[in-house]
Amino acid sequence: MSPRRKPHAAKQFIRPLLQRLHAYVPGEQPKIEGLIKLNTNENPYPPSPKVLAAIKKSADTRLRLYPNPTAEPLRQELAKLHGCKPENIIVGNGSDELLAMAVRAFVEPVPAAQSSIPGRLLGKSLVQFFHPSYSLYPVLASIHGARANAVPLNNNFSLPKMKELKRARQWSFHAALSFITTPNAPSGYGYSTASLKEICESQKGVVVLDEAYSDFARENALALAFEHPHVLIARTFSKAYSLCFQRVGYFVGCRELIGALDKLRDSYNVNGLGQIAALATLDDLPYYRANFQKIIATRKRLSQALAALGFEVFPSQTNFILVRPPQFPAREWLQKLREQKILVRWFDAPVLRDFLRISMGTSGEARALVKAAKRI
Amino acid sequence: MSPRRKPHAAKQFIRPLLQRLHAYVPGEQPKIEGLIKLNTNENPYPPSPKVLAAIKKSADTRLRLYPNPTAEPLRQELAKLHGCKPENIIVGNGSDELLAMAVRAFVEPVPAAQSSIPGRLLGKSLVQFFHPSYSLYPVLASIHGARANAVPLNNNFSLPKMKELKRARQWSFHAALSFITTPNAPSGYGYSTASLKEICESQKGVVVLDEAYSDFARENALALAFEHPHVLIARTFSKAYSLCFQRVGYFVGCRELIGALDKLRDSYNVNGLGQIAALATLDDLPYYRANFQKIIATRKRLSQALAALGFEVFPSQTNFILVRPPQFPAREWLQKLREQKILVRWFDAPVLRDFLRISMGTSGEARALVKAAKRI
Repeated sequence: MSPRRKPHAAKQFIRPLLQRLHAYVPGEQPKIEGLIKLNTNENPYPPSPKVLAAIKKSADTRLRLYPNPTAEPLRQELAKLHGCKPENIIVGNGSDELLAMAVRAFVEPVPAAQSSIPGRLLGKSLVQFFHPSYSLYPVLASIHGARANAVPLNNNFSLPKMKELKRARQWSFHAALSFITTPNAPSGYGYSTASLKEICESQKGVVVLDEAYSDFARENALALAFEHPHVLIARTFSKAYSLCFQRVGYFVGCRELIGALDKLRDSYNVNGLGQIAALATLDDLPYYRANFQKIIATRKRLSQALAALGFEVFPSQTNFILVRPPQFPAREWLQKLREQKILVRWFDAPVLRDFLRISMGTSGEARALVKAAKRI
Repeated sequence: MSPRRKPHAAKQFIRPLLQRLHAYVPGEQPKIEGLIKLNTNENPYPPSPKVLAAIKKSADTRLRLYPNPTAEPLRQELAKLHGCKPENIIVGNGSDELLAMAVRAFVEPVPAAQSSIPGRLLGKSLVQFFHPSYSLYPVLASIHGARANAVPLNNNFSLPKMKELKRARQWSFHAALSFITTPNAPSGYGYSTASLKEICESQKGVVVLDEAYSDFARENALALAFEHPHVLIARTFSKAYSLCFQRVGYFVGCRELIGALDKLRDSYNVNGLGQIAALATLDDLPYYRANFQKIIATRKRLSQALAALGFEVFPSQTNFILVRPPQFPAREWLQKLREQKILVRWFDAPVLRDFLRISMGTSGEARALVKAAKRI
């Protein structure tokens, strides 16, 4: 009795859209003893002891009950933190869930049979982003059957100026949804709020400013979500708040857009212990702010040390750095570092092939990396 | 600086589909001291002490890391349990997430502009289910822009016979996706595997047999997922395994359909402590089986006690019973029971208005309900 008795028959049940789809490839999560893991931008420091205590205290009979369906207590605390109302906040199973929901809420899929779309409707089905940035965006567009518009950043990964965007005519000001990762990944480049504001004010569709790394940056663009009804800010507890494991991210924005996303939300999309952990996190922010400072200090030291070894290091406003390694191709460096039990990230994409992205570990891990690089 | 400065402008950014949408309404999760909560089919017994210990032991620095992206260890154990391979299993953030993904993977949305669809394509955009059953299904269809076909069950909530289905011509054998809750909710009716097999064998599209309550039933239809490439079985750790809080559900089926769903999956859709809790659950199944027996015994006693008070009680294969209360309308009973701090579920739908759905609590809670009913 094998579930694979009719291997070919099953294909007919799957939408043609999905049959063509290349899924998003997340960074590796290997379980190798003693591995220094600098490949997925996780925080090197554990969650606050208060967070761990809150989870332990909550692992009781309440697990049999459904969690708060709208993450209400967490939204209340986040609203206080950001100076808005709970209706301006939606919490997701990681911010990835909300990014996917934004595509479904604001972008019209292109009908399967449609070969040409009338010009005035083109923007309605367009998901737009700069390249390179978070490689999930084009995947979300194709899952939804929307069109993707990847617009190149400048060569040094800075944001093209508005004049440039208008002249090059590749960026669409009518896109239904534009994603901007700020500070950007994988470059680490921090965009100024002034330049983001200029873009937001020219867009006719929704703009999601994906601020997963903003706690490591000089400034953030949260205010834009309060000034413009079409701007949403994405934040996450994963990276800055050491909670990748528990999947809690959120959007801030005007209540109409937040309400539209809420209609798409699975009834109990945020697990209960995740809600509890996030609440306890907000209760101990000084612990995390001290970690941000440590990570920023490590970033500075590691950037200098690698530059001294001949690496080209791009300025970073995040908890990782993008580097162009010397002598060997980046892919070989990836391999050689791995042999020394250090895992970094390499992207198999034309504009990124010469680079490595290195997450900030502890200062000890950063020293181990420099030592390994010297040996190589 | 208010996020609501332009309340009307925001509407233009939201897909017309969503503006029309009525969201799914989950059962209440009130936090009232001393309330006996029999409204959302949660298990009255806590998770196994081994599950609680496993969570406490895992609340450590690992929370800073991403969880296993494909829930691989859990899928391996589930595969052993069900006698299949890990490729035959996908784990979701509760089975609700997977039900939504099934609609997106197997059903073509109806293009917004399209007023009439060619007959041969009708099935491609059709989500089908019996009524009454899980009220999420029509919501999932409308979120996706698909058509919904709700086909009435017999008056006693049993499944129409194949002959009936063919004669009435309301049930479509060409629907892209059919959901069948088995045993059914909110009726509690257990369908025979033989009758489900007959329906599955006549369907040209995918069939999801939603077995959220099958641990409380005499039989389950898991074998059909192994016999037919177009049949998927949905299971959850929420109800039978007292883990609503942590959101873990899964589908079993042929690896092509599971693979298609996997392409749609958020990279890290199942939180880490949920994976750990589910793994520890599988390690202590006798604890849960003993609880199933207690719940089934309570179901029998409560059914008899309520029948003796003049309630019409429908036979149940689940952890809840559907009853038609005597003397007052069901809605009044809901209110009167609530005044006595007992919360049950009433559905504001024509075929369900005369009924109450009562989740099985502990035997003490069931006694309290009978006492309250006598007073009323």
